[in-house]
Amino acid sequence: MTENKIVTSRENPHVKRLDALLRQKKAREESGLFVLEGARLCLDAVQSGLSIECVYLTRESAEKTPALLNLAEAAGQTVWLSESLAGRLGETKTPQGVFAVLPACALPRLGNPKPDGRYLLLYQVRDPGNLGGILRTAAALGGDGAYLCDCAEHVSPKVLRASMGGIFRLPLAVVDDMAALVARLSNVGVQTFAAAGGGTTAPQVLAGQGGKAVLIGNEGNGLPDDLTAACTATVSIPMKTGNESLNAAMAAGILMWEMIKDS
Amino acid sequence: MTENKIVTSRENPHVKRLDALLRQKKAREESGLFVLEGARLCLDAVQSGLSIECVYLTRESAEKTPALLNLAEAAGQTVWLSESLAGRLGETKTPQGVFAVLPACALPRLGNPKPDGRYLLLYQVRDPGNLGGILRTAAALGGDGAYLCDCAEHVSPKVLRASMGGIFRLPLAVVDDMAALVARLSNVGVQTFAAAGGGTTAPQVLAGQGGKAVLIGNEGNGLPDDLTAACTATVSIPMKTGNESLNAAMAAGILMWEMIKDS
Repeated sequence: MTENKIVTSRENPHVKRLDALLRQKKAREESGLFVLEGARLCLDAVQSGLSIECVYLTRESAEKTPALLNLAEAAGQTVWLSESLAGRLGETKTPQGVFAVLPACALPRLGNPKPDGRYLLLYQVRDPGNLGGILRTAAALGGDGAYLCDCAEHVSPKVLRASMGGIFRLPLAVVDDMAALVARLSNVGVQTFAAAGGGTTAPQVLAGQGGKAVLIGNEGNGLPDDLTAACTATVSIPMKTGNESLNAAMAAGILMWEMIKDS
Repeated sequence: MTENKIVTSRENPHVKRLDALLRQKKAREESGLFVLEGARLCLDAVQSGLSIECVYLTRESAEKTPALLNLAEAAGQTVWLSESLAGRLGETKTPQGVFAVLPACALPRLGNPKPDGRYLLLYQVRDPGNLGGILRTAAALGGDGAYLCDCAEHVSPKVLRASMGGIFRLPLAVVDDMAALVARLSNVGVQTFAAAGGGTTAPQVLAGQGGKAVLIGNEGNGLPDDLTAACTATVSIPMKTGNESLNAAMAAGILMWEMIKDS
């Protein structure tokens, strides 16, 4: 395919692949690929040094944002789309006319825990907006990485959007067994703190030096008792009496701040 | 209207009023009324002791959530809606078949600042989700109240939903002149801190005793220079290098936490 050819049909094989990667978790899992949508995320990925397999671009978006031509140059392949087709494919409210396909293995990977690391442990965080927001905050505050167990798919378009590119720079690992990870962290000297509602240990326990990890549970169900019990301590943000609650991402953000601010 | 009559028409005068209050800022401003949608918010308002002027209810929702009958009893008036009409009126994705109309003056009002108060100052926070999220967090963490200047309308359905009822318990005041308020706070001994990106004063400056206020600006434009200069100091959350940023509500939440945690 030359640069001059503009694809208009949803039946084009390149477009069918893009469509499947945007909409189907199975297609992403089987191929090991994921999709970014929009100029900001795509350019951020390149600036973060991630390798791009393929760029899908409209002439209009390349004219509006000339930096996207560098993106096309950096990518292994460029597919030009008509504006109408790009608009139909997109998942965002305002179609932006650019998509990038990346291998999931290009994302920074979290290896073995370090004794002085600051980690986030996410267990069954299922809301894509919350998961993306938490990863965005962890990347901005500068944690050493996040371990995900049974969470929303972190390379889904919704999580990627909510993470605002934080996922390009925050090392992540997906683990099958959170209890085993908690034990492993403990073995290398990293203290683990289970976030809980209504507990008595205030977040200030997270301040100070040393390796630490905060464990965040499901938005509705919290953490299972055995996992909480396996941690060094529980930690709760004190709430005013009433029916007050904090959004899950907000609570995670405040706990991460307390954990990271002195590191 | 008796309890047995079920309204099915959008032309019914009670329904026309509800529709206008849900959709038009002008209707809310002229009447001094606003609308809550959904069982959770409506019941929360009653539990918070707010007076309800009128409840709109479907038989189906009253059967599903019998507590709503207490709501109807507490209200001055009940209008029964058909399920189909309620679904068409609602603004949420999942229609919940209950609305409550309240006078805006029933919400807790913030009076003169106290010398030892902890306040939130919001200047041109225009995104309803951010504004609601910030007010929810402030209510949960237990601030003394928030002053709003040129922000999104705090009794709009979107802000009310995002605030998750926090607005029922957090004292608020809308002010015309933020610079004058900053001077007033300073006069009573409340230190004011302008939230800024890329500054050098870390949030820990907010810890400790004494009256304090954090000033949060517009999501895109931040704070005007003269307003920042009028504050006691600026405060910034340190970010890791990269393209990182925090969501506006998250940044406000972390700053509020630092300000409130020792109070």
